[in-house]
Amino acid sequence: MTDLYRPALALLTDLYQLTMAYGYWKLGRADQGAVFHLFFRRPPFAGGYAIAAGLGPALEYLQGFRFDPTDIDYLASLTGNDGNRLFETEFLSYLADLELTIDVDAMPEGSVVFAQEPLLRLRGPILQCQLLETPLLNIVNFQTLVATKASRITTAAADEPVLEFGLRRAPGIGGALAASRAAFIGGCAATSNVLAGKLYGIPVRGTHAHSWVMSFDSEAESFARYADVLPNNCVFLVDTYDTIEGVRRAVDVGRRLRQRGHEMVGIRLDSGDLAYLSIEARKILDEAGFPDASIVASNDLDEHAIEHLRSQGACIAVWGVGTKLATAYDQPALGGVYKLGALCDSDGTWQPKLKLSEQAIKTSIPGTLQVRRYENDAGLVGDMIFDELHGIDPRGIIVDAQDPTRRQNLSASERFQDLLIPVVRNGTLSTPFEDFTSIRQRRQENLQALHPSIRRFVHPHEFPVGLDIGLHELRDAMIHQAHKARSEEDRADTS
Amino acid sequence: MTDLYRPALALLTDLYQLTMAYGYWKLGRADQGAVFHLFFRRPPFAGGYAIAAGLGPALEYLQGFRFDPTDIDYLASLTGNDGNRLFETEFLSYLADLELTIDVDAMPEGSVVFAQEPLLRLRGPILQCQLLETPLLNIVNFQTLVATKASRITTAAADEPVLEFGLRRAPGIGGALAASRAAFIGGCAATSNVLAGKLYGIPVRGTHAHSWVMSFDSEAESFARYADVLPNNCVFLVDTYDTIEGVRRAVDVGRRLRQRGHEMVGIRLDSGDLAYLSIEARKILDEAGFPDASIVASNDLDEHAIEHLRSQGACIAVWGVGTKLATAYDQPALGGVYKLGALCDSDGTWQPKLKLSEQAIKTSIPGTLQVRRYENDAGLVGDMIFDELHGIDPRGIIVDAQDPTRRQNLSASERFQDLLIPVVRNGTLSTPFEDFTSIRQRRQENLQALHPSIRRFVHPHEFPVGLDIGLHELRDAMIHQAHKARSEEDRADTS
Repeated sequence: MTDLYRPALALLTDLYQLTMAYGYWKLGRADQGAVFHLFFRRPPFAGGYAIAAGLGPALEYLQGFRFDPTDIDYLASLTGNDGNRLFETEFLSYLADLELTIDVDAMPEGSVVFAQEPLLRLRGPILQCQLLETPLLNIVNFQTLVATKASRITTAAADEPVLEFGLRRAPGIGGALAASRAAFIGGCAATSNVLAGKLYGIPVRGTHAHSWVMSFDSEAESFARYADVLPNNCVFLVDTYDTIEGVRRAVDVGRRLRQRGHEMVGIRLDSGDLAYLSIEARKILDEAGFPDASIVASNDLDEHAIEHLRSQGACIAVWGVGTKLATAYDQPALGGVYKLGALCDSDGTWQPKLKLSEQAIKTSIPGTLQVRRYENDAGLVGDMIFDELHGIDPRGIIVDAQDPTRRQNLSASERFQDLLIPVVRNGTLSTPFEDFTSIRQRRQENLQALHPSIRRFVHPHEFPVGLDIGLHELRDAMIHQAHKARSEEDRADTS
Repeated sequence: MTDLYRPALALLTDLYQLTMAYGYWKLGRADQGAVFHLFFRRPPFAGGYAIAAGLGPALEYLQGFRFDPTDIDYLASLTGNDGNRLFETEFLSYLADLELTIDVDAMPEGSVVFAQEPLLRLRGPILQCQLLETPLLNIVNFQTLVATKASRITTAAADEPVLEFGLRRAPGIGGALAASRAAFIGGCAATSNVLAGKLYGIPVRGTHAHSWVMSFDSEAESFARYADVLPNNCVFLVDTYDTIEGVRRAVDVGRRLRQRGHEMVGIRLDSGDLAYLSIEARKILDEAGFPDASIVASNDLDEHAIEHLRSQGACIAVWGVGTKLATAYDQPALGGVYKLGALCDSDGTWQPKLKLSEQAIKTSIPGTLQVRRYENDAGLVGDMIFDELHGIDPRGIIVDAQDPTRRQNLSASERFQDLLIPVVRNGTLSTPFEDFTSIRQRRQENLQALHPSIRRFVHPHEFPVGLDIGLHELRDAMIHQAHKARSEEDRADTS
């Protein structure tokens, strides 16, 4: 793993995390144990699943976590509404010396993940957990979003390679690198971004643009000169003037290239009716003796456009996808959240914590959560969210978190696996960084184990995910308790 | 100006820029003079204008442009379809020694800019211009997009401050920093992103989250303890349990705070009906003697939500805007492009270049372009795009690039200003980096000079932008010429 971000990044957080941290410190609660979960409430793109991504960079962030002296000076300069400093010197010294002591459990990258399931679980001093909320959300939200988009797009392309071409429209330099990385996790075969190629080892691809063609007196000359210079990288962009004529000119140059002992790799279409043009281009190439020349297509593609083109019999062998992938165009934010699950009492007991909300979907799941995934020979059966400190109820039933009448018995499933694995212990990485080969393989295997109806783009079937019935009953009791306590507090207030 | 990106970033480009660069070098054309323009074809968000942003970071990128030895090693490792290297050693040595010699003219950040107008113009060796296409698009596209979104949002909020809270949902670390910077250019008053505060000098804001409230036995206690610790930064988040009750508890703590010589800054609403709740909260605060306590509102806000809330009389004094701003949610890519405008002949003559397209909007504007903005005492009158090497036709008429029947005579305008100013000469920065104060002031003044109908969010009036009639006539002739040449080439091909 390599990262661009060398400087200390502890300030990459919301100011309120620092004011709350100051509060906890000042009240002597800095080291109070807490459990937080990072999860999303709905899969992106109205889909049936997401692909976990961002753990590698998140762990790099944790590994490099520190406040450097200029950070401390900056914090010392911040003032409140009376013009006095926000933070006292002793607290800033505490931050300057702060080393992480948290434990982190996480879903490995490339895992298929569903709504409500923690992608990350942090356990440790509340002050540290709070400071880390914002950077972890930032990193995991965007990479999970783009990996999911890429997974949908590569699914639409079936086994044909998808190239990620998003750099020019991606959200800034860092956003582009993160997008290239996540797209590779989501199944893309290569990127146009050379720096992503260097940093992450992603294969890179690219030949020439319209400006190359325009800079010569004719298209024919532009192809011929390109072939002279880069005979082993010839994918001719044929649509600068007239696409069908462009294909014929590519064929002419391809023939001369062959006489010199090289093969034309293919052609690229970047405008027009890609279904019609690819079918016509395929005929021309085949008739001219270039059945192995690939047709690459680009131009505003996403999973829906690819599915549509394939259904029309488009002869496209390689898909170049840019803007719609690198920005996750149709839903450019995942909406992941980070919620308190438990707090440690002064006597060392862990108390589950609940946040109520008038929207049922926003009422949190209390506890120190783990996800158990059940499967049988036909594939995945269901996921159970349970409290690791309480264990699983022997009934083996999951209950839908929003609709308690929806239940399923998982006890007959043949195998299971707990998805959150230890990645940080006492602030130190406890597993090596994973390579992309395993991550990409995990995505493919996980996806394969899903019923196709869950992978569908439109109105996918919902995969069964629920709370262990014991956890459900505890949560239900806590919700009633909280409502009761609140109305008592109200009465006390008004009395 | 400070930047996170210390390493050499010359590889932050599409591979095809490097293969084309190799082609130009190999053909002895590396130093052939070229002119490229960076522009967009439609304003984002179906709006009437955009706010230019990203020039500062783009200039930093140019200043730091170099290939380092590990970049060269990486490029040497790339192979074509025959397994042989893509790039020969002599070319890589050329890159290792490459120093930029281009000239850049640009619209200053904070300028109001319209479709078809160059935000950047590069003139210099075609090889260099080509390598820079992708990083410049990446930087300018995203920052212009977010600055424009921020400008719309701050316009909706009238003179009330808008806080940018987007870090957790922004596209990765770099995307978040770029978004905070661009949001500040677009008129935001502050950010929650502490690192953006440190790096760019943007004011930072933040108090506490729901998790603070949840970590105490009661909301009342959580407010009281916060006030004990940070008496000069009290904006109480009142919606963890019951918003109206929360406001009453904030008032109680505010009274005790006042006894200690401090003033409560305000309260924050983060859910529910913000119009209703803010009006009720305002009443409670006013009646309790806190007329100066601000009501901050957040929760999925954008320009449309703010306009709607204001129209309902919502008593909101400060707007916290996150996801919708930092991701430019409703259109997360600007779609800026970078097109060849002219090439230098071997005899030193500049030849305008044209790219045809079946879509009229995609046919390029040839030349070495400049934008002249005309105004009179009532405000801006119109923008003329002209070829600097040919000067302006004495008729003083602009012609719409898509519809040549739409024309306007600008010669009666009292004043004008050329918008592209020299920023790089012979590869070296020729102007100091601009500070945010001037950039922000420019945005405000430029926007003020626009007729309100152009600032409107829905179906805005179109600001008059056109080609100098001389340039229009030249382009028209070139289009006819190109069509003629192409059909002759076709005849030659088929004969």
